[in-house]
Formats: sequence, C-alpha cells, structure tokens
Amino acid sequence: MNLNDLIHSSGEWLRGSGPNANIVLSSRIRLARNLTTAPFTNRATLDELESVLATVESAVSRIPHFKDSTFFRLQEMTAVDRQFLIERHLMSPALAEHPEGRAVIVSKEEMLSVMVNEEDHLRIQLMQSGFSLDSAWKVIDAIDNELSGQLPYAWLPDFGFLTACPTNTGTAMRGSVMLHLPALVMTRQMESIKLALAKLNYTSRGYYGEGSEAIGNCYQISNQVSLGRSEEQIIQNINSLIHDVVEKEQQAREFLLETSRPMLEDRICRAWGILNSARVISSHETIELVSMVRLGVDAGIIEDLDYRSLNEVFILIQPAHLQKIMGKPLTSADRDIYRATLIREKFQREQGE
Amino acid sequence: MNLNDLIHSSGEWLRGSGPNANIVLSSRIRLARNLTTAPFTNRATLDELESVLATVESAVSRIPHFKDSTFFRLQEMTAVDRQFLIERHLMSPALAEHPEGRAVIVSKEEMLSVMVNEEDHLRIQLMQSGFSLDSAWKVIDAIDNELSGQLPYAWLPDFGFLTACPTNTGTAMRGSVMLHLPALVMTRQMESIKLALAKLNYTSRGYYGEGSEAIGNCYQISNQVSLGRSEEQIIQNINSLIHDVVEKEQQAREFLLETSRPMLEDRICRAWGILNSARVISSHETIELVSMVRLGVDAGIIEDLDYRSLNEVFILIQPAHLQKIMGKPLTSADRDIYRATLIREKFQREQGE
Repeated sequence: MNLNDLIHSSGEWLRGSGPNANIVLSSRIRLARNLTTAPFTNRATLDELESVLATVESAVSRIPHFKDSTFFRLQEMTAVDRQFLIERHLMSPALAEHPEGRAVIVSKEEMLSVMVNEEDHLRIQLMQSGFSLDSAWKVIDAIDNELSGQLPYAWLPDFGFLTACPTNTGTAMRGSVMLHLPALVMTRQMESIKLALAKLNYTSRGYYGEGSEAIGNCYQISNQVSLGRSEEQIIQNINSLIHDVVEKEQQAREFLLETSRPMLEDRICRAWGILNSARVISSHETIELVSMVRLGVDAGIIEDLDYRSLNEVFILIQPAHLQKIMGKPLTSADRDIYRATLIREKFQREQGE
Repeated sequence: MNLNDLIHSSGEWLRGSGPNANIVLSSRIRLARNLTTAPFTNRATLDELESVLATVESAVSRIPHFKDSTFFRLQEMTAVDRQFLIERHLMSPALAEHPEGRAVIVSKEEMLSVMVNEEDHLRIQLMQSGFSLDSAWKVIDAIDNELSGQLPYAWLPDFGFLTACPTNTGTAMRGSVMLHLPALVMTRQMESIKLALAKLNYTSRGYYGEGSEAIGNCYQISNQVSLGRSEEQIIQNINSLIHDVVEKEQQAREFLLETSRPMLEDRICRAWGILNSARVISSHETIELVSMVRLGVDAGIIEDLDYRSLNEVFILIQPAHLQKIMGKPLTSADRDIYRATLIREKFQREQGE
C-alpha cells in the first residue's frame, strides 16, 4: 500500500453508515498482547524489539486476514508520513516518538491496524463505522485467535493477558465508541453524563484521543476495567451504556428542534455557509462547524450531503494530510488558507455531483 | 404616490452610482427656511401650524419641481407608515413625534423631500447618489429660488435666513456626505480623523443620523457652521475635506489588500456566506456584514453584485419596512427571522439574474 493512495479519502470505518450512524461515528476494539520471547517494550533492547518485529512480520504473513495489509517500519518513514498515520487513527503519537524498532500493520481499508512495540508488543485495533462493537469483536476475536496460533502470547490463568501496564491486564481489551453529542452539549447535560460515566469506570475523551479536549461535540467513550469479566460481558455493558447515551442525545435533538428550531437552523445554516465561504480557517473551527452541519444532515436541514464527506473533512484538514495533498511543507498560516480552499472545493464538488 | 409602491426598493439617491460610489454612498444638502407669517414651530399654535401647511401646500402646487411629489399629512398616516418614511431618510424621528400639523413632501424618486413644521417651518432636503454635493446644490438652489418666489421667507441682511436654532442661521445650509470607511476603521485611523473633523467644525455621525453609533463603518460628515460664508464656499470646503478622507480610505484599502489579503478575503467571503445562509439575523449584524461585502465588491472579491442591492438591504431590513412587506405587525424575534429570509431571497434572486 502506498500512503499517497489514502490521501484523498478516509478509512472504511469512517464511511458514515452502520447502526445509529447519525450519532455514533465509529466503534473500535483494541487488544493488548505481549510475547513471552522478549521483555516488555519499555525494558527491551533494540535487538529484542527487532526480534519482536521479525516474529510478528513472519506470523502475519501466514494469516489470511492480513493478506492485503502493509507492514510499515516507522524508522523507514518520514516524520510527515508517520504523522499522517496518526491523523488517520491508525497509530498512536507514542509509537511515533521512538520510531526505531517500531512498526504498524495497516489493512487495505484501514479497518484493522496492529501497532508493534508500542506500550505492549502488539496493540491490535479494529475499527468499524457506526455503533457496531459486536461485529468488531467477532472480527478481532477471529484475528486474535489466528495470531495466538502463530505467536507465543504472554498469558497466565490467574491474570489473563499480561500487559506492560497492570490496568490493562485480564482481557486486555478496550472497547470505544465515538459519539457525536451536540444536543447534549447544547442542553447542558454533558457534564453530568461525563460524571456518571466516570463513576461507572468509563472514560470519555475528545476526538483526538487521550488528554484531548472534546471539540466538535465528539466524545470517545471506553471501558476502563478489563479485568474480571469476559470480553462479551464487557462489550454488552458498553453497548447498554451507549444505547442510553444515544437515546438521550436523540431526545435532546428532538427537544431542541421542537423548542428552538429557528436558533438551531440558524446555527446549522451559518456553519454550512461559513464552511463554504471561509478563506482562512483553523482545524478547531472547522470541526466545530462540521459538528453543526452533521446535526443539520440528521435533522434534514442540510440536504444532499452524507456523513462520509463530513468524516473525510475531519481527517483531511489535519496538518500532515494537508502537506501530503499539497506535496510540500506548509506553515501554520499557509495551512489555514489551504484548509479553507480544500473544504470549499470538496463540498462544491459533492454538491455538484 | 402610494407608500406601498416604495416597499421593495430604495430611493434613487441610493442607486449606488455617481462619483466615488465605492466609498461615498450619498450626498445630501438640507436648507432650513421659515415663514414670516407664523412663529417658529415650537411656539406656534396648531392653527398657525395648519396655516403654514396650507401656505406651503399651495406654493409647491405651483412649482414644476414638485409636479410628481406627494404631500403626506402625518396625522393621517399610521405609525408604521411614518416610521417607514423615517427609515427611508425622508423625514426625521422628531417630525413623527408630534404628527399634528406636520407634513412631509416627497418627490417621486425620493431625491427631494421637504419636512413642514419640523424644528423650522421648512426643511428642504436633496439627496443624490455618490459624491455629488455640487450637483445637489444646483438642484436644491433652483428649488429654493422657486419657493422663495412663492413663500414669505424670514430673511434679514445681517443674519441671512432666520432659524429656530441660532446655530443654523446664515445660509441655514447643511451639506452631508455618507461615507463607507471600513479600511480606515480596520487600520485604526478613524478616531484621529473624527477628532480632526471636530476641530475643523465638522460633525461625523452614524448611518442613522444624529446621536447614532457608527455601524457598518458608515459615517455621515457634515458642516457645523453655516454662517459667514456663501453656500458655494461651504460646499467647496466640504468637498475638499471629503476628497482627503476618500483618498485616505482608498490608500488604506490598498494597504490592506497588499498586506493582509487572505484575512480581508476571509472576512468578506464569510460575511457574504453568512448573509446568504443565516436564518436569524439582527439589523446591526446585517449592516456590519453588508459593510464587508460592499468592500468586497470594490476589491473585486465579490462579483456580480452591485452597490444598489446592498444599499437596498440597508433600507429593507428595518422594522417598518419588514412589517409593510409582510403586511402585518411582527415581534422583534419574528423580524430577525423574516429579515434573514428576505436577505437570502433578495441575493439569490440577484445572483440568478
């Protein structure tokens, strides 16, 4: 796979369809795995990291799920290309910090990615569009079974999967759902929901992962506890919780449309107008405006526009993407101008289709 | 003339052409005149005011300049219709406050209007598009000569025309020019220009006249002193001053386009985008946005749009206009919604033409 083939679109997991796609952008399951043949990444020598890379590369070459995947050795990539993969949610910023002895395996349509020698030897990630943790689990479980047949997993009956950080031990599974919750934010319910989630041992984060602020009314909700329950039970719990949040957001949208339709239409149509006319725009402002437009698509206020285009904007407006599309380094001021051009051209093209 | 005929357009003086029309919206000359046959308005009885009305109505009926004019007795009009004439700059709010014994004469294309029994018995006003005080003076001087042949003007060799307020005595003439000065505002030169004007005995006011704030970067500059010089001298002085301001604004626009083009394009295009997409909008915000779009038309950034349409928006978005167009009373919240609809429809129609 050539990274340049990916430039103009987003991964399949952002195609904007699937269950509850009007509120749930995507579902993700991540498994942490370690090999018995090397110390944990943070204690391993470069030689040991390289041997993990070689073992994993050889293992995946024998597994059909990875047939069309690409094995990217980070050391051989430019900084912009590494940033590009981070922006596509295919690897973490942490993995890029020390590229030596690190790799990421990416499947053709970007649903599956495996980070090698991040905090754990393997971080297997499966992403799907919409609210679909169950089907994501089925796929990743099958892949994990294949991998476990090829790799000496560190696993103990009393602890389950061993991980570099004890909080991940057990199933070493994290299920996450990315939600778009503008109506809960506008009706000022989000703070209490976040508190309730924290009490239930769930984390809610912003669009760009750990530590990031919630911009564009997007929240990623994940389980914090991976121990003492089966994977299926954990997923069932997340599902039930997310169903509640989705329902609350749906109710809040209906409430706003009933009680404040002109204000809501105004915010949505202005957002759409600005995206189509700005000449200089930051990524932060873009994401806030896209959030309003996304709500407008769901409410039928904006027509002839699909969620996929909006998801693609989220991805394309990021620094490494802009620089790869332009084919040259861009200053922050240049990016703000080019971002505005790209957005206008994209939406004009889609409206023209 | 039926007021409803005027609803959908602005007067000829806002047609957006004439000298320096990219910066000068309109030029206006106002003459104050009083009759020897009655006390000043503020000391006259209702009978005396009525006799002034009758004398003036009879005089103008014999003057060709007033052939297609309409004589509106304010007492016979609804409050909304009176407000409508104020919004069109054809009469002052003060005249509407006590409608009994007051009238306003309006020529067919709204270039000429005469308030009867405002602060003075006659306030004759001539408005023209662009920077054209000279030609406005020629027209109003001819009209004034005709009127003086028909009416017993209060005039003394030592004082000139007598007026209710001593500051107007002498020529009793005020020349005003409405300027659009966004670049001087953006480059923060406007405060020092206003101070300089005040020192030279000129007043600068906002778009909506005395006491009004400068919104939409519009400033109305007028002479304060009407005594001790001929009308031609006064006009020559205003002209020379306005030429300076126009030149400074032109230089500031060029400076901004050279040094900050992306920022300027962004502000202009966003303003245009918002005007074409908002669903709720105040008149204040409209005027600020129109100001940016007007600058964009001059800079060639907005195409296929003329100043006349923008001037019409200034007029049409006002409360009485909105209510007459809709044919019913509207609350402030209703007006904000209807204003947004009207603006979108107007611009879509013009872009489609």
